[in-house]
Amino acid sequence: MFDLLIKNAWVLTMDESFTEYKNGYIAIKDGKIAEVGENKENLESREVIDANGNIVLPGFINTHTHAAMALLRGYGSDNPLKVWLEQYIWPVEGKFVSYEFVKDGTDIACYEMLRNGITCFVDMYFYENAVADSVKSAHMRAVLTTGILDFPTPGAKTPDEGIQKTIDFIKEYKNDEFIYPAIGPHAPYTCSPSTLQKSMQVAVDYDVAYHIHVSETLHEVEDIKNRYGDTPVKHLNNIGVLNDRVLAAHMVHPTDEEVELLAEKNVKIAHCPESNLKLASGIAPVPKMLEKGVIVSFGTDGTASNDDLDIIGELSTAAKLHKGYNLNPTVLPAKQVLAMATRDAAKAIRLDKKIGSIEVGKYADLIIIDINQPHLQPLFDPYIQIVYSSKGSDVDTVLINGKVVVENKEVLTVEKQRVLSIAKKWREKILS
Amino acid sequence: MFDLLIKNAWVLTMDESFTEYKNGYIAIKDGKIAEVGENKENLESREVIDANGNIVLPGFINTHTHAAMALLRGYGSDNPLKVWLEQYIWPVEGKFVSYEFVKDGTDIACYEMLRNGITCFVDMYFYENAVADSVKSAHMRAVLTTGILDFPTPGAKTPDEGIQKTIDFIKEYKNDEFIYPAIGPHAPYTCSPSTLQKSMQVAVDYDVAYHIHVSETLHEVEDIKNRYGDTPVKHLNNIGVLNDRVLAAHMVHPTDEEVELLAEKNVKIAHCPESNLKLASGIAPVPKMLEKGVIVSFGTDGTASNDDLDIIGELSTAAKLHKGYNLNPTVLPAKQVLAMATRDAAKAIRLDKKIGSIEVGKYADLIIIDINQPHLQPLFDPYIQIVYSSKGSDVDTVLINGKVVVENKEVLTVEKQRVLSIAKKWREKILS
Repeated sequence: MFDLLIKNAWVLTMDESFTEYKNGYIAIKDGKIAEVGENKENLESREVIDANGNIVLPGFINTHTHAAMALLRGYGSDNPLKVWLEQYIWPVEGKFVSYEFVKDGTDIACYEMLRNGITCFVDMYFYENAVADSVKSAHMRAVLTTGILDFPTPGAKTPDEGIQKTIDFIKEYKNDEFIYPAIGPHAPYTCSPSTLQKSMQVAVDYDVAYHIHVSETLHEVEDIKNRYGDTPVKHLNNIGVLNDRVLAAHMVHPTDEEVELLAEKNVKIAHCPESNLKLASGIAPVPKMLEKGVIVSFGTDGTASNDDLDIIGELSTAAKLHKGYNLNPTVLPAKQVLAMATRDAAKAIRLDKKIGSIEVGKYADLIIIDINQPHLQPLFDPYIQIVYSSKGSDVDTVLINGKVVVENKEVLTVEKQRVLSIAKKWREKILS
Repeated sequence: MFDLLIKNAWVLTMDESFTEYKNGYIAIKDGKIAEVGENKENLESREVIDANGNIVLPGFINTHTHAAMALLRGYGSDNPLKVWLEQYIWPVEGKFVSYEFVKDGTDIACYEMLRNGITCFVDMYFYENAVADSVKSAHMRAVLTTGILDFPTPGAKTPDEGIQKTIDFIKEYKNDEFIYPAIGPHAPYTCSPSTLQKSMQVAVDYDVAYHIHVSETLHEVEDIKNRYGDTPVKHLNNIGVLNDRVLAAHMVHPTDEEVELLAEKNVKIAHCPESNLKLASGIAPVPKMLEKGVIVSFGTDGTASNDDLDIIGELSTAAKLHKGYNLNPTVLPAKQVLAMATRDAAKAIRLDKKIGSIEVGKYADLIIIDINQPHLQPLFDPYIQIVYSSKGSDVDTVLINGKVVVENKEVLTVEKQRVLSIAKKWREKILS
């Protein structure tokens, strides 16, 4: 007896061989995928979902965000970076960031991510205990890091305090099925070599991921060169913190030599195309990184710099952007970008044994996309249609750990009216 | 007594001074806007729509598409351009393009455009009488052109026959309120100078727009230079067909000198960022064109090369793309891109006296965007929120000529199940 059976599904497993079941089923037991294949008779299950020919995919993984910044959506957009940060973002963060701010902001973010078919995300912010509470309540999965910086933050007066808080957080959640703690030294330009090295020691000691912003802007590249005599990736390598635990967000301006180094050290990338464009950071050399075998996944970045939390939006933008920028229509084909947002993203966060594809034994983190709509028909190739024609709003159903959390395009685990009230409350506070 | 009253609306008029009414109303009579302002008492109207604080904008104008190609959505995507055209698109078009193909394809396209808040579009294809029938039936507005080429097309054996058919079509629809005929010489590389000049004579004689693809690819630029000794815009100027009637689609590779010429001659541009990226044509110098005062609007291009019909998608992509590509976060701010998609687009198609902004006397072509959703809150600036956070699927209501054609996110004038059947039928034909 299974707990839940999804039948009549067009299953894109996103496993290494891109196995597909055109009239498929997925049987779920104890939160995990127990069977997957072409429809068959006599399957007993407590609950049944008829996918009605719609497409089932692994849930999308958002490998870089600052979820609580949903409260700052669109705030001060279109200004020069310095004005945006100094006159809008930093003053509000300085004044308001607290457990309540982070919990409320993350609640809004979780609602939006679920609505768009994101089942797991990587966060870097402050008060990650608030993020964990929000994630638990939304019944999502997340890799959580507290931003560690050399100057005082809302979470810690010193980097050592930030590192200690991270250790405490890791101990609290080490064996959780939903919360995966990791360490988050903010960036090479905000963390000294010593902070970066101590953080890596924690990552090794506790066997967790190491999440960091790297090579986001040309300004950063110049700054690191001036301070340390080398470009950011090489600098990280020089001080001994470049290895396969590293999930580097952005990576817009690596040199060719640095791309080789990323491949050699098996560093993982959270590519954030929309944030990089909107903040005028630039266009990352993704085709080159992929060609060298670097694992590249997609991150939305925070809502203040995007301004949404939609992986279909990111992968669609990326698939088009790199074709146009490189004048080559064959780079980042649809199948590959969907793999980047699912199974490669799972590798990027070291959870590829547990999520990222539809395979027996993995968690049942699944989404159903409603293809029975005029803007998704006629349908010649499911990968192409999702990447170039679908929107996050086409996600009809989301399951996490075998539990239905979005049904008929309605989020079940986060109450819509409550998050709308939260948003209104914070808008008034911020503008007062 | 008004026919229809929209009350409690956050009206963004998109007029030249960006007038806003936070608690506004719009009164409609005989298909036109009779009054607009802050809510007031004692307005008598046969019908009332309570916008409930949601944002009302002029309908979006899609200034370049090939609507019937909705039947080829995603077909052969991700292939090199030559393979895509020669092995996928052209064989199907050669075999199938007919009144039925064009009518059916345009029906799907009209459904999708209405759903995404597009109230008017510019088409270039064949069997434009079929497009006109579809547009009439969907209760939309459109500028329609038959593609004129120097080689035989599904519509005409010779360019002269194409021109004559256009003249007949212009005569048939010259005084229509919904169909605005224009002339569509395909491109400088598919039309001889003589065809381009004869077409311009028709545009002048019948006072219609002149729609043409120009400077889409580097290959085209080289081709025109080899054949005529000058780059495409200069070539058009040399032969006397560059003037304020011209709506040029793409314009990806103009030289600085050509940008000056576009401004001087008051040529209008249909910028198609997603198509240009996906087909690897390149990135148009939009900030430079805007700086010189060129009117730039947005086109989706055909669904086969995009693969959707969503102006919010185009304007959002453009707003981010040009910031990132030019490393400048202040180009294409939100307010400006929304103006480009509405009032500037109306100028681009010579209909700015009739549509493109919410002003008394203009047609009531209006959309209501549902901002009462977590992914659009908190809301600090309505222009920013629409451009960076909203999706076509957030359009709740669409009115064209004062008539409700989309209500509660459901299209009323094109039947969903019928277009889904049409799509299925053509998929089978194309693959058989």
